[in-house]
Amino acid sequence: MQKNYQQKTLGILGGGQLGRMVIQSAINYNIDIHILDPDSNAPCRSICQRFVQGSLTDFDTVYAFGRDCDVITIEIENVNTDALAKLAKEGKEVYPQPHLIKLIQDKRLQKSFYQEKGIPTAEFILTENKEEVLLQEDFLPAVNKLGREGYDGRGVQVLRNKEELGKAFDAPGLLEKLIDFEKEISVIVARNKSGEIISYPSVECSFHPTANLVEFLFAPADISSELEQKAQEIARKVIIELDLIGILAVEMFVTPEGEILVNEIAPRPHNSGHHTIEANFTSQFEQHLRAVLDMPLGNTDLRSPAAMVNLLGEDGYSGEAFVEGLDQAISQKGVYIHLYGKKLTKPFRKMGHVTLLDENLEHLKARAKEIKEVIKIKA
Amino acid sequence: MQKNYQQKTLGILGGGQLGRMVIQSAINYNIDIHILDPDSNAPCRSICQRFVQGSLTDFDTVYAFGRDCDVITIEIENVNTDALAKLAKEGKEVYPQPHLIKLIQDKRLQKSFYQEKGIPTAEFILTENKEEVLLQEDFLPAVNKLGREGYDGRGVQVLRNKEELGKAFDAPGLLEKLIDFEKEISVIVARNKSGEIISYPSVECSFHPTANLVEFLFAPADISSELEQKAQEIARKVIIELDLIGILAVEMFVTPEGEILVNEIAPRPHNSGHHTIEANFTSQFEQHLRAVLDMPLGNTDLRSPAAMVNLLGEDGYSGEAFVEGLDQAISQKGVYIHLYGKKLTKPFRKMGHVTLLDENLEHLKARAKEIKEVIKIKA
Repeated sequence: MQKNYQQKTLGILGGGQLGRMVIQSAINYNIDIHILDPDSNAPCRSICQRFVQGSLTDFDTVYAFGRDCDVITIEIENVNTDALAKLAKEGKEVYPQPHLIKLIQDKRLQKSFYQEKGIPTAEFILTENKEEVLLQEDFLPAVNKLGREGYDGRGVQVLRNKEELGKAFDAPGLLEKLIDFEKEISVIVARNKSGEIISYPSVECSFHPTANLVEFLFAPADISSELEQKAQEIARKVIIELDLIGILAVEMFVTPEGEILVNEIAPRPHNSGHHTIEANFTSQFEQHLRAVLDMPLGNTDLRSPAAMVNLLGEDGYSGEAFVEGLDQAISQKGVYIHLYGKKLTKPFRKMGHVTLLDENLEHLKARAKEIKEVIKIKA
Repeated sequence: MQKNYQQKTLGILGGGQLGRMVIQSAINYNIDIHILDPDSNAPCRSICQRFVQGSLTDFDTVYAFGRDCDVITIEIENVNTDALAKLAKEGKEVYPQPHLIKLIQDKRLQKSFYQEKGIPTAEFILTENKEEVLLQEDFLPAVNKLGREGYDGRGVQVLRNKEELGKAFDAPGLLEKLIDFEKEISVIVARNKSGEIISYPSVECSFHPTANLVEFLFAPADISSELEQKAQEIARKVIIELDLIGILAVEMFVTPEGEILVNEIAPRPHNSGHHTIEANFTSQFEQHLRAVLDMPLGNTDLRSPAAMVNLLGEDGYSGEAFVEGLDQAISQKGVYIHLYGKKLTKPFRKMGHVTLLDENLEHLKARAKEIKEVIKIKA
């Protein structure tokens, strides 16, 4: 007999905050979650049904973990896709599909895919090593990206001029035209096995000046309805062309000319969707479950304008985390704290986030900045 | 040094659905929760930091459990209050305070308290045994309640006439005038150690005709602003007169004459507050944490009108639970499923609830009834 989704065991590769928030949604559905993570103190550890400590990139570890699950998904891209492919071949349901994780893991394949499918993206050149980058002086200013293993701002750098060319990565990567953008936006889109597709209203991301991490996020994005429609169409086109089952965050640039260019994609719940827990009818975490377990997808309408503030470990503090200013923050209406259960802080480590709800967009922006000054993660 | 609330261990007596939803809130604050429950398959088991299987009414078990916690609270009233009193005396923070749990455990003490404090409640007579009830024919129709151990409809019965008098409980209890009420409403009120008090807008409860359990709940209650204010004042008066720290559900009758009478109170998260997870700015479960850990209390405004439907085990089915009709329900906008992780169902067992959000109160009522027909808990 076909198993109902409540009877299926869902394995997640990765036990960080994204998995943790997926589990928080899964509790409402009695869905058993198994977690594989190398860190014995992973944020998911104490709330999952089964925790396996082990490498996400080791074939045997991932394969053995997946054998005990009915459905396998990810909360981080850097996993062993060969093991996932073998599990899928043996009849396990693996979403997003292993070949797509492999494609997205490699920014070179990702960019080539956009080009091939006519998805708008910044002009780029593939480079094999530093020597090849050095030949591209005329292409500057550009962003130099490593093909693989880049994450949360690592493996990405701007090369503005000849002098900076010397910093070029000496490994397979790419050079991408530095885009003069007005805004960075993100659209999260989901698709289940039955073929339903649904997308969230776009959000506007504001990045930390040095850490290259999202610092603030505002929903909805302050763009015209024309641009909004364009962004929605592009996000849907990406998930359709990939033929992906699961959830996909599509990060895009909006240029001064009103063009929208796809920057990067992530086939999992994403930092740009954290506000959906309180701000939308269905959170991205529940949507991820719905997509990979082939449940009907949930409505994505915004219930209220929202801002999201990442709580990063304060620069200069390492060790056992202490959250300063919590009382002041949570005495305000519409302030939601999400701490990720990480015992140790270090500079710029993602320790939690705060979602703010406010009907007034101007107030939201002011309050988001204020919250960031109020709450500090120290040691 | 004074411990911050994130460093405190919170012990909860009882590991059922109420504790489970408290834990779901606690995850966002990195608060460690220890659970004591006699059932090895209790709903909290797999998501708490430490689970102790044991009796809630045994002195030694409760005392030993509480010794390892910093703060102790309850999710069910039927616990050993002597052990809690000893823990409080030894410096543990125990909220609600043990003597108040003891008072509320006994409906006779509860009613006498209302009388003494001038809190409006239905007229009553204390009775020691069946014989004393039999003498009260002139007081009929009345509700006969056991003083202790009544829960979820047990220990409560209506005695309409002389013939029914024979069913009277033969134990210390009370007879309460049968109230001709128009509505049953509930107000949840919270108070922390610092003395802050906050209450939720009143909700309207509709009870199952035979099981004596809340079947539907609607928020806000459809009453005049005058009655709403009266209900708020009474709920606040009760928590103040009790001097209770924690959360308190105050169930009240609204009579055709526009009187409000307190029916019963519960010093813990309550079925009449389940909708607050999605419908209010702060859920009752987070509010309970805030109250007992002396955090600032959270805003209680309604974000949207809501209905709540209890998912009771279908009559005629016992055994491993299966939820029918889930797909049909969750494909609707504003439908939120909460399953309690109970493996086994039996007739009228509380297996979960559904919250519905809809700006239109008439639609809400129709949709709540529809959901109840769609989702069935079978075996």
